[in-house]
Amino acid sequence: MTDITRADGRRVDELRTVTIERGWSSQAEGSALVSFGGTKVLCTASFTNGVPRWLVGKGKGWVTAEYAMLPRATNSRNDRESVKGKIGGRTHEISRLIGRALRAVVDTKALGENTIVIDCDVLQADGGTRTAAITGAYVALADAIEWGRGKKFIGQKTQVLFDSVSAVSVGIIDGEPMLDLAYVEDVRAETDMNVVVTGRGLFVEVQGTAEGAPFDKRELDALLQLGVDGCASLRDIQAGVLAPSGE
Amino acid sequence: MTDITRADGRRVDELRTVTIERGWSSQAEGSALVSFGGTKVLCTASFTNGVPRWLVGKGKGWVTAEYAMLPRATNSRNDRESVKGKIGGRTHEISRLIGRALRAVVDTKALGENTIVIDCDVLQADGGTRTAAITGAYVALADAIEWGRGKKFIGQKTQVLFDSVSAVSVGIIDGEPMLDLAYVEDVRAETDMNVVVTGRGLFVEVQGTAEGAPFDKRELDALLQLGVDGCASLRDIQAGVLAPSGE
Amino acid sequence: MTDITRADGRRVDELRTVTIERGWSSQAEGSALVSFGGTKVLCTASFTNGVPRWLVGKGKGWVTAEYAMLPRATNSRNDRESVKGKIGGRTHEISRLIGRALRAVVDTKALGENTIVIDCDVLQADGGTRTAAITGAYVALADAIEWGRGKKFIGQKTQVLFDSVSAVSVGIIDGEPMLDLAYVEDVRAETDMNVVVTGRGLFVEVQGTAEGAPFDKRELDALLQLGVDGCASLRDIQAGVLAPSGE
Amino acid sequence: MTDITRADGRRVDELRTVTIERGWSSQAEGSALVSFGGTKVLCTASFTNGVPRWLVGKGKGWVTAEYAMLPRATNSRNDRESVKGKIGGRTHEISRLIGRALRAVVDTKALGENTIVIDCDVLQADGGTRTAAITGAYVALADAIEWGRGKKFIGQKTQVLFDSVSAVSVGIIDGEPMLDLAYVEDVRAETDMNVVVTGRGLFVEVQGTAEGAPFDKRELDALLQLGVDGCASLRDIQAGVLAPSGE
Amino acid sequence: MTDITRADGRRVDELRTVTIERGWSSQAEGSALVSFGGTKVLCTASFTNGVPRWLVGKGKGWVTAEYAMLPRATNSRNDRESVKGKIGGRTHEISRLIGRALRAVVDTKALGENTIVIDCDVLQADGGTRTAAITGAYVALADAIEWGRGKKFIGQKTQVLFDSVSAVSVGIIDGEPMLDLAYVEDVRAETDMNVVVTGRGLFVEVQGTAEGAPFDKRELDALLQLGVDGCASLRDIQAGVLAPSGE
Amino acid sequence: MTDITRADGRRVDELRTVTIERGWSSQAEGSALVSFGGTKVLCTASFTNGVPRWLVGKGKGWVTAEYAMLPRATNSRNDRESVKGKIGGRTHEISRLIGRALRAVVDTKALGENTIVIDCDVLQADGGTRTAAITGAYVALADAIEWGRGKKFIGQKTQVLFDSVSAVSVGIIDGEPMLDLAYVEDVRAETDMNVVVTGRGLFVEVQGTAEGAPFDKRELDALLQLGVDGCASLRDIQAGVLAPSGE
Repeated sequence: MTDITRADGRRVDELRTVTIERGWSSQAEGSALVSFGGTKVLCTASFTNGVPRWLVGKGKGWVTAEYAMLPRATNSRNDRESVKGKIGGRTHEISRLIGRALRAVVDTKALGENTIVIDCDVLQADGGTRTAAITGAYVALADAIEWGRGKKFIGQKTQVLFDSVSAVSVGIIDGEPMLDLAYVEDVRAETDMNVVVTGRGLFVEVQGTAEGAPFDKRELDALLQLGVDGCASLRDIQAGVLAPSGE
Repeated sequence: MTDITRADGRRVDELRTVTIERGWSSQAEGSALVSFGGTKVLCTASFTNGVPRWLVGKGKGWVTAEYAMLPRATNSRNDRESVKGKIGGRTHEISRLIGRALRAVVDTKALGENTIVIDCDVLQADGGTRTAAITGAYVALADAIEWGRGKKFIGQKTQVLFDSVSAVSVGIIDGEPMLDLAYVEDVRAETDMNVVVTGRGLFVEVQGTAEGAPFDKRELDALLQLGVDGCASLRDIQAGVLAPSGE
Repeated sequence: MTDITRADGRRVDELRTVTIERGWSSQAEGSALVSFGGTKVLCTASFTNGVPRWLVGKGKGWVTAEYAMLPRATNSRNDRESVKGKIGGRTHEISRLIGRALRAVVDTKALGENTIVIDCDVLQADGGTRTAAITGAYVALADAIEWGRGKKFIGQKTQVLFDSVSAVSVGIIDGEPMLDLAYVEDVRAETDMNVVVTGRGLFVEVQGTAEGAPFDKRELDALLQLGVDGCASLRDIQAGVLAPSGE
Repeated sequence: MTDITRADGRRVDELRTVTIERGWSSQAEGSALVSFGGTKVLCTASFTNGVPRWLVGKGKGWVTAEYAMLPRATNSRNDRESVKGKIGGRTHEISRLIGRALRAVVDTKALGENTIVIDCDVLQADGGTRTAAITGAYVALADAIEWGRGKKFIGQKTQVLFDSVSAVSVGIIDGEPMLDLAYVEDVRAETDMNVVVTGRGLFVEVQGTAEGAPFDKRELDALLQLGVDGCASLRDIQAGVLAPSGE
Repeated sequence: MTDITRADGRRVDELRTVTIERGWSSQAEGSALVSFGGTKVLCTASFTNGVPRWLVGKGKGWVTAEYAMLPRATNSRNDRESVKGKIGGRTHEISRLIGRALRAVVDTKALGENTIVIDCDVLQADGGTRTAAITGAYVALADAIEWGRGKKFIGQKTQVLFDSVSAVSVGIIDGEPMLDLAYVEDVRAETDMNVVVTGRGLFVEVQGTAEGAPFDKRELDALLQLGVDGCASLRDIQAGVLAPSGE
Repeated sequence: MTDITRADGRRVDELRTVTIERGWSSQAEGSALVSFGGTKVLCTASFTNGVPRWLVGKGKGWVTAEYAMLPRATNSRNDRESVKGKIGGRTHEISRLIGRALRAVVDTKALGENTIVIDCDVLQADGGTRTAAITGAYVALADAIEWGRGKKFIGQKTQVLFDSVSAVSVGIIDGEPMLDLAYVEDVRAETDMNVVVTGRGLFVEVQGTAEGAPFDKRELDALLQLGVDGCASLRDIQAGVLAPSGE
C-alpha cells in the first residue's frame, strides 16, 4: 500500500462511506436502502410461500434476484429497458450474479418450499452498484427470512443462513490496486474486479477483467487481498445493522 | 362536508402528509422525492440541449414524461415490465397524463430547442401515485429549467413556466366525496377522479370514472370542488419548496 | 348556444349523421358497423361460455374490449402495431376505456360465468373513434347477450344489462363549446372531452383535457351539458336499432 | 367436370358471388372492398412520393403489401397479433405472396421513385382470403397509380401496369377438383392450391400443397386448368369495375 | 434439354454433389449433415415421448420443424433473428414448408403420442437451403423413429413412414429450365420453383413463383419434370445412406 | 496433482482432444470449427470496412462477438431464442465475455476504421463451450485480419494482434482441481472457473464461482495454475494451425 490520496481523499484501501437503512420499505417483507458513497440501491425482498413449478415437491426453497437501474441514476439518462422491450446483457449478468451470491449462503432445504425474490433497484449510480446491491440484498434477505419465521413458514430454530455475504469492487489504476472504486476511478481502471466474500472470509465469486493491459498473478493477489479485507468491513456493518440494537 | 373520520384519522377534505424533498438526486438537472402519505415517487428531470428529430428547426422545445413502478412498490410484487418485454396499458396511460399536465404550463417557444424528460419512478405505492408524480414532477421541471438558464440554453429573463401545476385524487366512498384517497380507500371507491389543476385554479385534466354506480352532476361538482381546493394546498407546498428560502 | 355554422354545416350542438348497421358480421355473436359521419367502426362481440382462470368459481362473468385502427383508417398510413411488435399507449388507453364503459351497465352476476370480448376496429377515422366504438359496442354486446340467452347460457328472464351506454366527444373551439368533433375540429380544439353517459343520463366516465389553454368550471359545465344531450340522442338511435322492428 | 353439386349449390367449376366495391375508403389513394361469397377483405392502397432508403436513387418504385385478419373475422375469435407482440408465420407468408403477385404486373421503373403499400384486412373470413385479397388489391393499386398520375408523380402517358392480376383457390375434395373453396370445403380438401394468374393467362404463382394424400400430375393439371379459368372470370370482373362506366 | 453448360460445369438436368452425413450429432435421436454443393444444413431430430397439450388423448403423434440460418452462412452477414427479437417471414415460411413435407409421409397414428421436432440449421448457404433441409430432415426423422422404436415408444412392427420425401429447386434462367440452382443461378432466375416429391413420385408441394416474367403451362411442365427426376435421384441417395450398409 | 483418473480417462491436468479446423467456411473472411472433445463450435469472422456510427472518425476499429447455441446442441432440446423473441442472460453474458477476450489482444488503432464481428455458434455442447469459442474465435479473427490486409484495408506491416488469446475451464470436483471440464464433470463441480489467458501468460479474465461450498485462496491458486498451463497448450495448438505449414 502506498500513501497515494484519491480524488475523494480516501486511502487506496479505504471504503467509501457505507450506510444501510434497514426496513426502508413498508411494503416488502425485508428491505434495505444501501449507500456506498454516491451509489444508492434500494433492495427489497419479497417472500412467497410456495416455489416455482419446476421445484414443487423437492422440499427446497428458491432465492433469486433482479437488478435494474432507474433511467436517470447515471450522469446522462439511459432509455428504460421496459420501453426498449428487452433487458440488456449487463442487467441480466448482474441479476444472475446477485442471485448466485445470495444462494451461496442459503440452505435451501432449511428455507423449505418458500420463494424469496430480491429486487435491487439502483436509484443513484456512482460505481460499484452490483457490489452495493449484494451487500444490501443480504440484509433484506435476512429480514425476509425472519418474517417467514414469524409467519411460521420456516421453523423457529431452523438456520437458513449459514453465513453472511458481501461484495466490493477493486481495481488497478495507474498501476496501483485500490478498493471500492467510484465511477471516476472505475472508468480509468486498467483492471477491474468484483469479489464476493462470505462473513467467514471464503470466496463466492471472483470476476476480474483486464480493461486495459492484461494482469499478472502478483497484481491479482494484491486485488484479492484488498477485496477480502473490504468485505470484512462490510460484514461488520451488516452485522451492526442486523443486530437487535441496530434496528 | 360531514365530520366522518377516515381510517387514518383524516377529515374527508384533508390531504395526507405531503413532503417534497427537492434536489434528491445529485445526478439529474432537477429532482424531487415526493411523498403523499405512504406513496413515494422519485421524480428526476433530464435536460438535453436539442430536440427530437421531428421538432428540429421549429424553434420549440419538448417536455415529456415516463412513469413506472418498482416491482415491490406495492403490497405484493409485480413482474417488471422490462422482463415482460412490454409496457402495460396503465403505465402508458399515466406517462401520457403526466406529460400533458406538465406541457400545459410550459411555453415551449420560450423553452427553445431543448428537451426535458421527466422520470417518475414509484418507490412505494399507497394510492394516488399519478397525482403525487405530477406534483413532484413540476418541482423537478422547474429546477431543470433553472439549470438550463444557468447553462445559457435559456435566456436569463425568459419565462418558460407561465403557471404551476399539481394534481390530486378524489372519490366517492359510501356516498361521501373524499380528498386524496389512500390505497385502502381507492379500492372501495364507487367513483374515482383525478384532477390536474394549475396554480391559478384552472383545470388541465379531469378524469372521472364510475367504478361502481354511475354518478350524477351534483356528485361530480362536489368532487371537482374538493379537487380544486386540494390542488390549491399542493400549489402552496410546491411554492414553499421552490422559494429561495426553501432550498 | 350561438348560431355559428361549422365546416360541415352543423350547428354547435348537432351530432354528425349516425348510423348503426346491426348484425354486420355473420360470424360474431353480436356485431354492429357504426358510423359517426366519416368515422366507421366495426364492433363484434364474441361470446364464450366460461371465464378467465382468475374468475373461475366466482359466479360472475367478464366483459372486456379491444380497440384498434386499420393502418390506413387515417389520412396518412400508420404502421401496424402487430408489425411494430407492441401496442401503443393510445390503443391501450382506449381499449380500457371501452371495457370500463360497457362493464358499467352489465350485471356480471346475472351474466353468469360467461365471457364477452368486444372488438372495435376502426375501418375509417374522422374524429370520435372511441365514442363511436362505445356506442356501437353496446349494440353488439346487447345482441351477444341475447345469443347467450338463446343458447341457454343465460337464464330466460335474467336482466344482464341494467341500463344502456353511449359516448360522444365535445370540445371548445375558438372559445365555443361544440358537440361530436370531426377530425378537422378535433385538432383545433383548445379543450377536448369525452363523456360516457348511461341511458338514464348518469355519468360513467368524464375525460377532459386542455390541449391549449386550461379551462374553467363554467366551460366544463357547458361541455358536460352538450355531452349529456348528445348521448341522449345516441341512446335513442341505439334503442331504435335494437327494437324488434329495428331488425 | 362432373355434375356434383356443392354445399352452397355451386358447380365444381363455379366461383362464389364476387363483388368489388371500388373506392370504399375516403382516406386512401385507392381502395376496394372485395367479397368472394362470405369472405370480405378491405384493400387500401397508400401512395407515397419517395422510396425506402435502400432504393433511393435507383429510379425505381416500390410496391408492397400487408395482410391481416380482424380477430373475429373467423368463426371463433383469434388473439390479435399486436397483442401477442408478434406476427404469425401464416400472416407473413400471405403478405409476401400478395406483394409478389402485385409486383409481377408493375413496371417499377415506370412507377418512378414512388411507394405504394397495399393493406389487405380481412373483415370476414370464409375461405380464400388470400386470393380475394390479391384480386381486390389489384383494383386498389390501379386506382392509387391513377391518383399518382393525377398528382403528376407519374407521367401522363406512362404505363405502370403492363397486365392485371387475380387469384383463386382450387382443391381436390373427395377426389374431385373444385374451384374457389369456401371454408367448409377448404378444411376437407386433400389438396389445396392457390394460383395467381395475369389477365393474359400467365402464371405468377402456383402453390399447391397435399394436405392429405400426395397428388399426381393429372390431378395437378386439372387444378391448374380450373384456376386459370377462374382467374379469367375474375379478370373480367376487375375490368368491369375499373372501366370508366364502372365508377 | 439443351447441352448448355452451367457456371459450375453441370448439365441443366444435373444435381450438385449431394452428400448426407448420417448421425453427425452425438446428442440428437436422429441427425444428418446434408450438403447440396456449397449448401450445408445440419438437421437434428429430437424425439420426445408425449405430445403438445392440444393433441393429448387423440392417439396421434406430432412432427414439426424449425429452420434457421447462421448469421454468416451467407456471403454477407445477416443480423441474428434472436437479436432482432423476431423471426422473419422467410424463416417462418420455410419452417412451415419443411414440417408439412415431413408430415406428408408420416402416419401420425402409427407414431403414437410422441413428438419429433426437426431443427434444420443452415451452416453455409449457396442456394436451395430449404430443399436440402427437407432432404436431410427425412434422414434425421427416419433415425429418430428407429430410436423411438428401440426405446419401445413405437411398436416393433409399426410402419410410421409410408413413403420417403425429398425436395429440389428448379428454375428458368435465360429461358432454360434448370435443376438445383446454386445461389448465383437463383438470383438470375426468371421463375423459381421448389418441388417436394415422395419416393413414389407423387407431389407433396409445388411452389412456383415468377420472379421476372410470368410463365406459361409449357414451362411449368418442363420444370415439374426436372424436379420429379431430381427428387428420384435424391430418394436413391437417401435410401443408400439409410440402408444398413450405409451406416 | 494426484493420479486420479477421470471418467474419460484423462489426468486431472489434461485437456480433452482439441482440434481447430481453420477455414471451415467458404463464405466468411475468417473461420474455424473448434472441438474440445465433444464440444464443437463454429466460429466465423465477418470483416466490414467501416465502423458503427458511434465510432466514426475516431481512427479506431471495432471487434465484437455473438455466441449462440443450436437448439439441439445439448442433450435435450432448448427452445430457440429467436422463437422466444429474446436472448437469455447466459447468452448475453458469454457474447460479452468473448468480445472482451478478443479485444484484449487487438490494437484497435492499428485495425483502423474496420469492424470484425465474430459469430460463435455451438453445434454440439459437452462443457466448456465459451472457452472453446474464445480459442477458436482467435483463429478466425487472425484470418479475418489477414483478409483485410490482403484487401488493403489494413497496412501491410501494421501489427493488429499484439498477443494471442485462449481460454479454458477449470473446477474443483470432490475436492480435486481439474482442467477442462466435460459436461458430466461441470455439473458436479463445487467451484467452476473460466480463465482467459494471453499467449504471453497474462490474465485477461478470471471468473470463478462457487456452485457449492465457497472456496479459499489455496484452492483458487491451484485452479489458476491449472488454467494458465492449459492455456499455454491451447496457444501452441493455435500457433500450429495458424503457422504457414498449418494451412
